[in-house]
Amino acid sequence: MIDWRKWRHVTKLDPDKPITPKDVAAIVDSGTDAIMLSGTQNITRENVASLADMLKDYDIPKVLEPSNTDGLREDVDFLFVPSVLNTDVAFWFMGAHRIWVQNFRIDWEKVVPEAYIVLNPKSAVARVTKAKTDILPKEAAAYAECADRFFHFPIVYVEYSGTYGDPEVVKAIRERLHGSILYYGGGINSRERALEMSRYASTIVVGNLVYEPGGIEKLKETIVK
Amino acid sequence: MIDWRKWRHVTKLDPDKPITPKDVAAIVDSGTDAIMLSGTQNITRENVASLADMLKDYDIPKVLEPSNTDGLREDVDFLFVPSVLNTDVAFWFMGAHRIWVQNFRIDWEKVVPEAYIVLNPKSAVARVTKAKTDILPKEAAAYAECADRFFHFPIVYVEYSGTYGDPEVVKAIRERLHGSILYYGGGINSRERALEMSRYASTIVVGNLVYEPGGIEKLKETIVK
Repeated sequence: MIDWRKWRHVTKLDPDKPITPKDVAAIVDSGTDAIMLSGTQNITRENVASLADMLKDYDIPKVLEPSNTDGLREDVDFLFVPSVLNTDVAFWFMGAHRIWVQNFRIDWEKVVPEAYIVLNPKSAVARVTKAKTDILPKEAAAYAECADRFFHFPIVYVEYSGTYGDPEVVKAIRERLHGSILYYGGGINSRERALEMSRYASTIVVGNLVYEPGGIEKLKETIVK
Repeated sequence: MIDWRKWRHVTKLDPDKPITPKDVAAIVDSGTDAIMLSGTQNITRENVASLADMLKDYDIPKVLEPSNTDGLREDVDFLFVPSVLNTDVAFWFMGAHRIWVQNFRIDWEKVVPEAYIVLNPKSAVARVTKAKTDILPKEAAAYAECADRFFHFPIVYVEYSGTYGDPEVVKAIRERLHGSILYYGGGINSRERALEMSRYASTIVVGNLVYEPGGIEKLKETIVK
């Protein structure tokens, strides 16, 4: 049984972005704890299948983080299912989830609910989910406490996707958590940033970096254990 | 330590409705497992305090079910905090909760989150929360499964407040629950109805009946154990 709670570093691969088998091999070999298949836009059965196929011979833990039901598949270790807290659009908090539950038979043993706090207004996820990104650190912390103590989310995920976040916000959130594991994602492209966010987050997520020239070499620097 | 999970029958008293100390004594003496202080409209610090004062010398378990933060008080055994699933207004699912968490220091040991499925369109709670009451049994069941498996609500509450519900809907919901306790409220005014809904619900809630002439005598008939 894989204990996802012990992961310190997760690499996020986007099914919508091209990648070579050689790069996938290097990422798997980097020392990252798990690979997450995840994207906000243009996620299809085909491109998820293509990426999953490239990963299928590796033992590394695999997580699918669905943004819709099109790419759902069984051959992963976990489904990390996001729910956005800081939006007024109930669909992104629980409406999409109700439709999923109504139409699929779900292996709940594999499902790990994630409470997203989306904080970069320019990111695709913020635009799609109409996230209220202009919030105070104490509001973000209150959302996190609700996610933890009221809704019992196993993961609270601070998402700055596409930019590096404010460590003070991440710290404020960390201080209010009781049982949830804190994930941080956004702008991690150096050891310094990885160390800074790892002070507060249990797990850091690196995504865009691996698609940049020389990014996979830099990925190794971001692995802090 | 009071184990609320064992309750089979709860009597709901509305701070906005007048009641005599004699009636309160008879209700406490009826055999009901707990008293819930709860109302949707015109709930104030004063009327909650007045009702709590009438109950303070009785050992019966007391639950406050807040509809806003005005009536919050410490001298109860539990806070059952509702969250409405079948609404598109995020405020009633989690927005109000975030504001509460941000502004109050909360004794989480006392808090029991409730996932409400509101099904009587004419009820105050449906109107206030803009609940989508026109849903199929399978939709209601999918909401319940989400509440249970995704959000880990300890209670799923089927609320027909003001009318008697459809036992088939309650049955469909019951069949999808795994860990949540099922509450049913609405139109319970006879032993027959209490027995019917108790087939599916772990706990039935009786409210309006006690405000009707002869209602407190009838309350005893609704206690099924």
